[in-house]
Amino acid sequence: MTAPRPHGSTRPGGRTARTRAAVLKAAWDELGTREFSDITIDRIARRSGVHAATIRRRWRTIEGVITDMLGQHSGTIPIPDTGSLREDLHTVTRSIAEFYALPRNRRLVEAVVTSAAREPGAAEVMRAVFKNRIKQVSVLLERAVERGEVPADTDAEEVIAAIGAPFYYRLLITRRPIDTELARISAESAYLAAVEGVFRTDASPD
Amino acid sequence: MTAPRPHGSTRPGGRTARTRAAVLKAAWDELGTREFSDITIDRIARRSGVHAATIRRRWRTIEGVITDMLGQHSGTIPIPDTGSLREDLHTVTRSIAEFYALPRNRRLVEAVVTSAAREPGAAEVMRAVFKNRIKQVSVLLERAVERGEVPADTDAEEVIAAIGAPFYYRLLITRRPIDTELARISAESAYLAAVEGVFRTDASPD
Repeated sequence: MTAPRPHGSTRPGGRTARTRAAVLKAAWDELGTREFSDITIDRIARRSGVHAATIRRRWRTIEGVITDMLGQHSGTIPIPDTGSLREDLHTVTRSIAEFYALPRNRRLVEAVVTSAAREPGAAEVMRAVFKNRIKQVSVLLERAVERGEVPADTDAEEVIAAIGAPFYYRLLITRRPIDTELARISAESAYLAAVEGVFRTDASPD
Repeated sequence: MTAPRPHGSTRPGGRTARTRAAVLKAAWDELGTREFSDITIDRIARRSGVHAATIRRRWRTIEGVITDMLGQHSGTIPIPDTGSLREDLHTVTRSIAEFYALPRNRRLVEAVVTSAAREPGAAEVMRAVFKNRIKQVSVLLERAVERGEVPADTDAEEVIAAIGAPFYYRLLITRRPIDTELARISAESAYLAAVEGVFRTDASPD
């Protein structure tokens, strides 16, 4: 989704590119086997076969590596088209719940948010990736407007942010497991609010 | 709200306690003047007059200092009692929006979430603090149940999590400013869902 950042990769397919691929793959594999808090540059060096000094020189920190990796692993999301906004939203939240049921994916988002707090460059990458995702999924609302299910001036991106928010709250703040119940609550709450016009751009405050 | 953790403070009011107070105050002041990503142990040392080596020995990392500070600055929240769940929820979300309009408070939550990702001890403290807050505020729902506004088996803590979630999503994920519009959307969405029974503990999945 985001073009890989050219971390000194002057020769595609050359040694620089191979080094980068090895480091990012090692970081990805590390996330699959241990908590983010236990991942260090030294572990990535051992797993990738790239010298720790080389990794530090090119990415500086673990957060730098994670940010570079985010560009590679932020694939597109399947966009449902069931003919009903309610069902579409439930389908999306079920997909999110399935995604974050995997510990590696939980750790990835945790690593990314942490990186964004520590590295301004990471914050930019994360913002761009999520903005793009939200925009992709917000097509659901355009279709719902066409079907007359929600008001025409519904703020589509706020609806999509609303269905995502409960997952990140649970992952990052209360730090409990994601379950299908959360997916149901999230989709249904956003649906009811959208239908009632809560997300209208000219909704006046109470 | 949380008792200060005894970071080696064997003599209350003694040198150890004074050192801790100076370091935590310096960390708090730093959050008021610069981004979390720019706060270092060395800066806290300069500001507090405590040796960096002493800070590293006692707290190990910036995250350790932030975690210790969280216990001090997680004050109680005013709990509204307007006689209407809808108005109560709007009052709470307006308070949250005001709180996070201050850059220092945004940085505090960012620092805390980051610390929780890097330090298991910090994750425990954060979980306890938020669990306690959610529980405090969920009394609003008990009153709403008594008034017959929402079903008796409404999961109060999930309602309170739902009104908080959009704020943390915007702070940590999309990283945009908090505004009163977000407070309105958050309160109104949770209210409609609560009234419709979305948060019932025995609500069956669609």
